[in-house]
Amino acid sequence: MTEEFIPAYMGISTFMHAKHTRDLTDVDMAVVGIPFDSGAVSWRSGTRHGPGSIRENSKQLWGYNRHVGIWPTKDVNFIDYGDIECDPTNIDRSADAITAGVLELLKQDVRVMSLGGDHSITYPLLRAHAEKFGPVALVHFDSHTDCYQVIPQLEHGTPFHLAIRDGFVDTSAYVQVGIRGPQSNEGELKEAEDLGADVLTIEKCFEMGTSAIVDHIRQKVGDRPVYVTLDIDSIDPAYAPGTGTPEVGGFTSFQMLHMVRGLAGLNVIGADLVEVNPHYDHGAITAILGANLAFELMSVMGKNLM
Amino acid sequence: MTEEFIPAYMGISTFMHAKHTRDLTDVDMAVVGIPFDSGAVSWRSGTRHGPGSIRENSKQLWGYNRHVGIWPTKDVNFIDYGDIECDPTNIDRSADAITAGVLELLKQDVRVMSLGGDHSITYPLLRAHAEKFGPVALVHFDSHTDCYQVIPQLEHGTPFHLAIRDGFVDTSAYVQVGIRGPQSNEGELKEAEDLGADVLTIEKCFEMGTSAIVDHIRQKVGDRPVYVTLDIDSIDPAYAPGTGTPEVGGFTSFQMLHMVRGLAGLNVIGADLVEVNPHYDHGAITAILGANLAFELMSVMGKNLM
Amino acid sequence: MTEEFIPAYMGISTFMHAKHTRDLTDVDMAVVGIPFDSGAVSWRSGTRHGPGSIRENSKQLWGYNRHVGIWPTKDVNFIDYGDIECDPTNIDRSADAITAGVLELLKQDVRVMSLGGDHSITYPLLRAHAEKFGPVALVHFDSHTDCYQVIPQLEHGTPFHLAIRDGFVDTSAYVQVGIRGPQSNEGELKEAEDLGADVLTIEKCFEMGTSAIVDHIRQKVGDRPVYVTLDIDSIDPAYAPGTGTPEVGGFTSFQMLHMVRGLAGLNVIGADLVEVNPHYDHGAITAILGANLAFELMSVMGKNLM
Amino acid sequence: MTEEFIPAYMGISTFMHAKHTRDLTDVDMAVVGIPFDSGAVSWRSGTRHGPGSIRENSKQLWGYNRHVGIWPTKDVNFIDYGDIECDPTNIDRSADAITAGVLELLKQDVRVMSLGGDHSITYPLLRAHAEKFGPVALVHFDSHTDCYQVIPQLEHGTPFHLAIRDGFVDTSAYVQVGIRGPQSNEGELKEAEDLGADVLTIEKCFEMGTSAIVDHIRQKVGDRPVYVTLDIDSIDPAYAPGTGTPEVGGFTSFQMLHMVRGLAGLNVIGADLVEVNPHYDHGAITAILGANLAFELMSVMGKNLM
Amino acid sequence: MTEEFIPAYMGISTFMHAKHTRDLTDVDMAVVGIPFDSGAVSWRSGTRHGPGSIRENSKQLWGYNRHVGIWPTKDVNFIDYGDIECDPTNIDRSADAITAGVLELLKQDVRVMSLGGDHSITYPLLRAHAEKFGPVALVHFDSHTDCYQVIPQLEHGTPFHLAIRDGFVDTSAYVQVGIRGPQSNEGELKEAEDLGADVLTIEKCFEMGTSAIVDHIRQKVGDRPVYVTLDIDSIDPAYAPGTGTPEVGGFTSFQMLHMVRGLAGLNVIGADLVEVNPHYDHGAITAILGANLAFELMSVMGKNLM
Amino acid sequence: MTEEFIPAYMGISTFMHAKHTRDLTDVDMAVVGIPFDSGAVSWRSGTRHGPGSIRENSKQLWGYNRHVGIWPTKDVNFIDYGDIECDPTNIDRSADAITAGVLELLKQDVRVMSLGGDHSITYPLLRAHAEKFGPVALVHFDSHTDCYQVIPQLEHGTPFHLAIRDGFVDTSAYVQVGIRGPQSNEGELKEAEDLGADVLTIEKCFEMGTSAIVDHIRQKVGDRPVYVTLDIDSIDPAYAPGTGTPEVGGFTSFQMLHMVRGLAGLNVIGADLVEVNPHYDHGAITAILGANLAFELMSVMGKNLM
Repeated sequence: MTEEFIPAYMGISTFMHAKHTRDLTDVDMAVVGIPFDSGAVSWRSGTRHGPGSIRENSKQLWGYNRHVGIWPTKDVNFIDYGDIECDPTNIDRSADAITAGVLELLKQDVRVMSLGGDHSITYPLLRAHAEKFGPVALVHFDSHTDCYQVIPQLEHGTPFHLAIRDGFVDTSAYVQVGIRGPQSNEGELKEAEDLGADVLTIEKCFEMGTSAIVDHIRQKVGDRPVYVTLDIDSIDPAYAPGTGTPEVGGFTSFQMLHMVRGLAGLNVIGADLVEVNPHYDHGAITAILGANLAFELMSVMGKNLM
Repeated sequence: MTEEFIPAYMGISTFMHAKHTRDLTDVDMAVVGIPFDSGAVSWRSGTRHGPGSIRENSKQLWGYNRHVGIWPTKDVNFIDYGDIECDPTNIDRSADAITAGVLELLKQDVRVMSLGGDHSITYPLLRAHAEKFGPVALVHFDSHTDCYQVIPQLEHGTPFHLAIRDGFVDTSAYVQVGIRGPQSNEGELKEAEDLGADVLTIEKCFEMGTSAIVDHIRQKVGDRPVYVTLDIDSIDPAYAPGTGTPEVGGFTSFQMLHMVRGLAGLNVIGADLVEVNPHYDHGAITAILGANLAFELMSVMGKNLM
Repeated sequence: MTEEFIPAYMGISTFMHAKHTRDLTDVDMAVVGIPFDSGAVSWRSGTRHGPGSIRENSKQLWGYNRHVGIWPTKDVNFIDYGDIECDPTNIDRSADAITAGVLELLKQDVRVMSLGGDHSITYPLLRAHAEKFGPVALVHFDSHTDCYQVIPQLEHGTPFHLAIRDGFVDTSAYVQVGIRGPQSNEGELKEAEDLGADVLTIEKCFEMGTSAIVDHIRQKVGDRPVYVTLDIDSIDPAYAPGTGTPEVGGFTSFQMLHMVRGLAGLNVIGADLVEVNPHYDHGAITAILGANLAFELMSVMGKNLM
Repeated sequence: MTEEFIPAYMGISTFMHAKHTRDLTDVDMAVVGIPFDSGAVSWRSGTRHGPGSIRENSKQLWGYNRHVGIWPTKDVNFIDYGDIECDPTNIDRSADAITAGVLELLKQDVRVMSLGGDHSITYPLLRAHAEKFGPVALVHFDSHTDCYQVIPQLEHGTPFHLAIRDGFVDTSAYVQVGIRGPQSNEGELKEAEDLGADVLTIEKCFEMGTSAIVDHIRQKVGDRPVYVTLDIDSIDPAYAPGTGTPEVGGFTSFQMLHMVRGLAGLNVIGADLVEVNPHYDHGAITAILGANLAFELMSVMGKNLM
Repeated sequence: MTEEFIPAYMGISTFMHAKHTRDLTDVDMAVVGIPFDSGAVSWRSGTRHGPGSIRENSKQLWGYNRHVGIWPTKDVNFIDYGDIECDPTNIDRSADAITAGVLELLKQDVRVMSLGGDHSITYPLLRAHAEKFGPVALVHFDSHTDCYQVIPQLEHGTPFHLAIRDGFVDTSAYVQVGIRGPQSNEGELKEAEDLGADVLTIEKCFEMGTSAIVDHIRQKVGDRPVYVTLDIDSIDPAYAPGTGTPEVGGFTSFQMLHMVRGLAGLNVIGADLVEVNPHYDHGAITAILGANLAFELMSVMGKNLM
Repeated sequence: MTEEFIPAYMGISTFMHAKHTRDLTDVDMAVVGIPFDSGAVSWRSGTRHGPGSIRENSKQLWGYNRHVGIWPTKDVNFIDYGDIECDPTNIDRSADAITAGVLELLKQDVRVMSLGGDHSITYPLLRAHAEKFGPVALVHFDSHTDCYQVIPQLEHGTPFHLAIRDGFVDTSAYVQVGIRGPQSNEGELKEAEDLGADVLTIEKCFEMGTSAIVDHIRQKVGDRPVYVTLDIDSIDPAYAPGTGTPEVGGFTSFQMLHMVRGLAGLNVIGADLVEVNPHYDHGAITAILGANLAFELMSVMGKNLM
């Protein structure tokens, strides 16, 4: 059987059966796991097991993406880099390890598709990408704004107000998509907007439709270097039960696939997929969805490298 | 950390971390658990574990409802009253205990948000509310009519024909929303309509859209005192797997949230959320959805008390 | 309690509490289980347990179908025939057993509703039906084309190119509905189209809407004898997690119910429902959906026999 | 394949693939399911699903018992009678149905192996057997005495004090085996002993060893007609997690098998296996153990009929 | 129903239905939850959910302990204090919060039964108890020595070498019971012994038997104030699957119950039960076992207070 | 962190974090996965997922074995070879692939620790080892004899009568350990004994104790080259629920560990661990036990290579 048709139940679990190596020579794009979940202070731990579960369930995926027109694991030089080691007892040490680890790849012009881990990891990821690319435009799929300023320290509800504070984000092009749920206070959305976020609540999203959302994002981002962060809880728990702080009333999987594919052609220079928590998954449907979304993000990112 | 931000994994599991007490002094609204499942004669037992699971999973919820404009656990005086004790070996004794128990709260002008339990509990709940408010308008979200007259006794398929028989319902304002599934006989829907129910089948609902359904309900109910009963199986099993008699082809969670929020402004004097069965839940997504819907129902009910 | 109201948790698990017998005298329609999963070469085994799980969860179903106007287990003479014995160690021996087993029923003018099993069983099922009815029109709900010619032997990715090769399908009326997912190569869809399939990708389906899809199918099929094969993975994993090769971004349960009901009036002479894998199911929602879809297919098929 | 070698995953789920019929002509022994769980007032519901799960998992069992020297489903005329219908809303109506239902078999000299259901069903079962055989000796494997006199009505903690009160048990030969756990009051064991029970606590059992326990029972019972009731929670939750009120610190599966086999030669005239609750089972290990224990009980009971 | 007989499925989930309060007036003994799991650096996160699960599953427990001769929730003044808030992002801040929180109780002469959380919490717990009682004797049930000196910082593999370093433990009376598993290096056991631990490996334990182990511990401890720490992974995964780093080949539940009861009469001044991880539990058997062991530890500790 | 202390949740899932390569230069010992489950004709499919689950759960294991005195992944040159590709649709093709694949390693003097897969794989494994070493002594831990001569073809109940027929086994040294369960016929054990097997039934084993069993095996095997096959269902389902045909009343995990360690010093030239089925596992306790047993088998096998 050719490499493309290795059965999904077979072999060592790398992302889509890709080669696992730390040798970056000629590498264009890499999957990097970031198994860190001590930033999940609000409810359930477990996203440290996310990268492993996504890898295992990515082995089902065939490789050609007819929507984007790329075989992202073949048309560019792609590897599975493995995981960055964090320290569950200390978030600051972990954040430093993440930034340093990812910078090693970025410095060698490798595009990084990060698999979380809880959403706190996006702060050190943005820090690394900003060091390489300067302040980046940001497309942020989530049910929560993760901009809660009442909390001054890094955890999974604060990466974006910290990243903005530290200048990693080009706030003229920061879109939040899918925000919903009971809120921490009356002014929560305004708080995010005051930081510069363009907040599309879920009811706004459902009114607009995914094509209009895509247009809105594309217009906003233009040709800036853009980072995409996708919190799996932006999707409804029916489609993505395996996550730490599920919010009901979210996107379907098709809607999210459609939006991510719609980013093709933008100058996507980095992406992460976070908050997949296998402890609450079943039939691995969340990990499978996560693997598919990573595949789509890689397609969009890789297309520019062909 | 302030009371609003107690982590969901922490502390004693009351509804949304509310105070648990039986002291009703100055109380405006209460959550009451009714852990009774011997009325579930058709298939799966287990809804006695519903109130506990909903409480546990409600702790994730922040408190401000921007759709309704209320923080229902703070803007009114709210408590978690605990559970009413039933007798699993005898439904009639249990029904009497429920009516008596809830009347204690109603008599002190406490609005009650009941958490089931199987749908048979709505009969004694309506009995209590009718004693307080007279015959009530009824908004009934369900996949089943629960009006099966072939069965003369109380169980979870009969609360509504019994409640109508006994005069607890104002049948000029009784709407059923979401009815579907294989049927017990050719005349099943007509049977419910003959009792006075305005039956909106699921295909009718999908044709109308949720905004039109809301308008229809509001017009029908007007300013009558209205009771809302929400059987979680009105929602599709994809979104609410944890229930006793799932019916495929139902609402999404967003559609249901939208309809419940649409009741704001009506004179809602009581509500229940029933048929959450943790034995068949996974990742607690049904209990989380149940907690959110109870939150929305409480918001609608509490808004009138502000 | 009358036969129609046997509680779902009670009794021996036959399909919808039907009579289990091998006596075909005067029988019009039968459910036949085909517990074979060695054709699932791509990922997960377990569909051998599909027929048992569907039977167990079919017991909840009441019997009258108001959409089609039939009580399919009463209005025609219906039985649960039990299972056909296969040999997990050898697919060819198994395929022969399936064709022979089903032909016994077809020869006595019994319509067969087959419950898989993996999708490889549709090859021997088509072989049997073609022997009885000649080449059949084919309505094929799936996320995969299952026409992968690179693989010459029978497995669950090849039944249709083999069936076409062997003349069992009237390729002037072969519609595939719901195709999606990363692909095996750039020409995958064209490959299926070259074989004669009318491929409706999922994005095409979502653009058309289910009513237009139904019209399209009806026009294509006309009054030909038509076989319907329904791979449960055509539906989104949120609704049907219990399957071997889930593809995200699929149909809702309501959409599928609507399409199947829309086939009423066509000359449906056989049907199968495949790829239900209880190992990955939860709360039995996939088996319940499978049981409902079999009920709808039986209604459509049985209506012609009234 | 011969009848003895039908694969376990195949066919309609009767007990050990036995014939399902209500025709009692020439029948020697029958399995009867009693899917009733409203007597489980102390904690978890779900044993109504016990008979179905035991049946499904009994299909793995081959038939020859080399310890007892019998093929219990062949060496005597054995059937699966199906279930007795109970009414979950009322325990007294249910108890009457059970006594009446089982008496039908006893009157035709059929030995009955009952599958529960919660332990309250043993009261009506003893009532039926006492009507046929007079007061019976009783071997009672359990972690709880189920003799709690503080509760006057029938539920799963009271069948034995009620049965003794009503004269169904020969208290000169009533042995309880495996009693343990935190207790309802200081005098709990004495209460049971005062009723006539010979209480072997678990620590006594572990001191004696299973051979000595068997000797003790045999001496006590002698040649009296004896009924055996086996609550699955007598076994440790490691071996039998699927039950309603698990008590840690219990028997291993081998110890229980050994004790049951040791009853061979006694005049066992009836037996039940209760409290298997599939909601809390995993990998079906409790149902498999239950099926094996029913097989052993049937062997012991059937041996006398050869 | 009297307070002692509240059904387990009912009411707010406090430990054994005890009163939840922070008022320590006249309190003798308290359960305290410590939902912290960021010290679990070796494998699985999730023990933050331990206290909640143990509470929920403790509600089944009746109250009288006939082995120790005490009703620990009635014979002394007992409360459920709730949880101590930790910070998942920083273990040092969390350890300080734990020591401070528990000292508040100790200073008011309340004995504390702590429910973890991962084993790192025993370091701050020993720090608090040593401040109150001076260096304490230590009985340590575990499969791992948790004395790994190669790691200098606090995490769940190091609490004991740190506690010894800081003088919290009277190393002339420190017994480790149940050590096993593949090891970090050839000298692992010697390393623990050099620190002062009396290491009983599992094979030594099985040779001695639990009565001899108890004698050994009693002799060693004498009348010193003694702290008991019980890592649930000392018990075999068959009995306690729900834990973070399971080690096969361990104690049965009965053996552990027997050993804990054997500590009655010692001057037990504090105890903890750690590493219950509900994410990997099933049927809640680990949480039930944890609740029973906490009940036994409370009985032993409370007996001295009667 | 040194290689020995990579956290278990981190990195690519190879066996005990070993190097994955197909380069056999200087390799002494290798783990080889054989993900084949079409030989499981009797009940449940799913062991194709065994090697992956064992690998994932082996990452927790530290490396030094103090019982055998070896760090098997360091003291000899050890690799994870990955999986051998089989064809689920045809057992004969698969058996040929297995024999050929393993012979490649054996010919280069690599010792092979195979991870199944169902027990049918032991036939081609013995075929390969016999080609290298001549007829081998055989230590066979199992609950079933797997010598069922009534079945002439290869499946998981026949590998040993076929291997004996074909001369792969030195029947003067073939011991079966742990046989139990209801049987296929009265003469089942004699059938195995007539083939040359020395059958130790489970009751015999429990009478002898594990030390005597080890002595018995050692005496029988002497200095012959010996192959060890360990069916996980030899262990009780409480300890190993994740398997296809569980037999209650089996060994504890400690007993099995003790027996395997007792083989140290024998000339073990090959070993397999089969029938781990993750579909029925929970908390991964079966996979963890499997990983530990593979570690012990590797230790025993590797010790001879130091």
